[in-house]
Amino acid sequence: MIGEIIAVGDELTTGRIINTTSAFAARQLFLAGHTVAAMHTIGDTPKLIGEVLKRAVGRADFVLVTGGLGATTDDLTNEATAEALERPATLHPEILEKIHARPWGDVRALEKLAWLPQGAEVLNAEARMAGHLLVHETVPVFFLPGVPMQAEKLLTEIVLPRLNDWCGGSHSAVRTRLYRTIGLSECEINQWLLTLEQEAQITIGYYPVGGEVQVSLTVAASSEAAADNLFNAADQRIRLILGEYLYGTDQETLAQIVGQLLWENKLLLATAESCTGGLIGAKITAVPGSLAWFAGGVVAYSNQLKEKLLNVDAELLRKHGAVSEPVAEAMATGLAARTGAEIAVSVTGIAGPDGGTVDKPVGTVYIGVFYQGAARAKLHHFCGSRNEIQEMTAMMALDTVRRVVLKTSKERE
Amino acid sequence: MIGEIIAVGDELTTGRIINTTSAFAARQLFLAGHTVAAMHTIGDTPKLIGEVLKRAVGRADFVLVTGGLGATTDDLTNEATAEALERPATLHPEILEKIHARPWGDVRALEKLAWLPQGAEVLNAEARMAGHLLVHETVPVFFLPGVPMQAEKLLTEIVLPRLNDWCGGSHSAVRTRLYRTIGLSECEINQWLLTLEQEAQITIGYYPVGGEVQVSLTVAASSEAAADNLFNAADQRIRLILGEYLYGTDQETLAQIVGQLLWENKLLLATAESCTGGLIGAKITAVPGSLAWFAGGVVAYSNQLKEKLLNVDAELLRKHGAVSEPVAEAMATGLAARTGAEIAVSVTGIAGPDGGTVDKPVGTVYIGVFYQGAARAKLHHFCGSRNEIQEMTAMMALDTVRRVVLKTSKERE
Repeated sequence: MIGEIIAVGDELTTGRIINTTSAFAARQLFLAGHTVAAMHTIGDTPKLIGEVLKRAVGRADFVLVTGGLGATTDDLTNEATAEALERPATLHPEILEKIHARPWGDVRALEKLAWLPQGAEVLNAEARMAGHLLVHETVPVFFLPGVPMQAEKLLTEIVLPRLNDWCGGSHSAVRTRLYRTIGLSECEINQWLLTLEQEAQITIGYYPVGGEVQVSLTVAASSEAAADNLFNAADQRIRLILGEYLYGTDQETLAQIVGQLLWENKLLLATAESCTGGLIGAKITAVPGSLAWFAGGVVAYSNQLKEKLLNVDAELLRKHGAVSEPVAEAMATGLAARTGAEIAVSVTGIAGPDGGTVDKPVGTVYIGVFYQGAARAKLHHFCGSRNEIQEMTAMMALDTVRRVVLKTSKERE
Repeated sequence: MIGEIIAVGDELTTGRIINTTSAFAARQLFLAGHTVAAMHTIGDTPKLIGEVLKRAVGRADFVLVTGGLGATTDDLTNEATAEALERPATLHPEILEKIHARPWGDVRALEKLAWLPQGAEVLNAEARMAGHLLVHETVPVFFLPGVPMQAEKLLTEIVLPRLNDWCGGSHSAVRTRLYRTIGLSECEINQWLLTLEQEAQITIGYYPVGGEVQVSLTVAASSEAAADNLFNAADQRIRLILGEYLYGTDQETLAQIVGQLLWENKLLLATAESCTGGLIGAKITAVPGSLAWFAGGVVAYSNQLKEKLLNVDAELLRKHGAVSEPVAEAMATGLAARTGAEIAVSVTGIAGPDGGTVDKPVGTVYIGVFYQGAARAKLHHFCGSRNEIQEMTAMMALDTVRRVVLKTSKERE
């Protein structure tokens, strides 16, 4: 189906915030086999919101509207819609009830959230921002909150399946998968997949995101069976080509995959972080249930804490410097001893912008791992800003754990 | 003047690339005193490009079009414009000459670049992509390349000055500031600023971002002096109203502000994180130079590590549970003793989605702080997903440090 996206908010039309929500929605819709013909971003002006909405509804098979649904005075999407589509605001008692059930906060100020344009169907009454659907002259119009995480959740969990039901298989059959890799550059992967990329009905995209490179495969065919055959063949080839650089697909995160591996092998992990300051632990504990395979660890940012909390020898620090192979190994060994974890990973490096030298430029990072009685460390070089180097270091540390566990669990088989 | 921006390209409507050029243009136009009413992004479809362009020209004082000006088959902006505004393609010999003078490449394939809609004035014949201006029924329409750097250069060097000449100083002087707050909800702040918001020439926006709420102030006046006066008065009122909930402005992060305070007061900070798993440390070490005021700390995710690394009494954990006031206090006290840091902050809570009980539902978090010989902990309730609760907890922990240091440094004065 052909759709249009309308994002509402002065924060977007003044350029204060870059509109990532519309780009995310466009991507997801494209991967689901739809075409986004136009994306509009309108300031908090009801007249123009209404005008653009009316035109989009007249042109498109579906419309997605994001933002301006909140309870403050600059949230005007519902008012604009009520006016433009002649659907007066109507009270939704089920939302009002949820608002009044909140144990804290100024409930009266939130009551505006319960008034939606006539005919609106609430998408998820359990969510903080429910979102709603209006079907106007057979065109479904989805209204989602402007906060990226909330919008993305409603889009993937509710809007995409609903749209899929809507078009009932009349469009071409599309299969898609996102391959998540670590340790290769975008260009290297591009070279490896060049032959596959040039085949008909196959589209491949490359996206460096954080410390990883994501590869998207999209297959389009005239029938479901043809799409399945083509997709399975391409999927096999991609997996063979990417090998161990491929850590997961679609929504899987590296921390999730590492957690699964640790859980299957009944291993407890601990982390000793210097230049990442806790980022590895934060990525791990973002995974629900990570307590089953993650003990915690030490953020040994200063040399003093490397000595005090990780038993790193002061002489070692003096002789080799904090950013060195022996110190990375000693951090991992000390951490394992202190925590009793079966596997301990350590990072120490220079994230910049200052602190680099000729011998150890910004981006020099040692990643150590203690496992089965011995510690080893490896030197890495990363490019980019301070935050990019920290992100890449954290991802590579998780990948180090993944590869170590994978290797021994394969040897056992 | 009131303008609209149109960006052209399938790479944008498929979500493959995020449209940063429009956001940059919107920001620059806003800061120059103009209002961007709407931004449109259209795929490579001439009919829709023409339709949206025609509407924008009918509504706005000026229009900016980016992308689709190149020489490949999917560059269709000029064709669409010629058709929609009835201005047939016309050869520009000065551009053709430049193309033929190029020492390399397939010159014939580039000749398309020399054909522009009738009446177009070339903006910069020296540039790789010249850009052009069409004045249609008194409305200036600027056409810029889609490549961000090329578009940004033409925009700042040519378009903005031309627009300024166009309106002959009739546009308004604009002042703007972003206020970053923590501890209040969007609705509470809205209530507090309602009177100010209703005044003429003042626009206020509210944006919840991560664990904080950002408030934008925009003042528009007829002269620079009037804008300064109005802005300074509004700024003073906002600072008075927000009080200690205001932690910084514009690009300042909470971790930066905390670091500055610690540095000024010569204090070293350490962190003991349970439910945030390292996120507080990651936010801190994202700030360059944080080693001067941050020692590191412990990620005590399991109860075992709370005992082993923070000396939390096993009996205390058994009696009160890990998520409790005494444990949060013991974590902070134990951390300070282990690290020698002057100020130690601890968090322990239930980030969900599982693990909640009737007494301690998901979102229950204790934040403890040890400072000047004593530890205290405070109970917080947060709503949202696991990651949102972790984000809010990390921000509130940093704010706890900010308030403690601020209080004692004020008492000292």
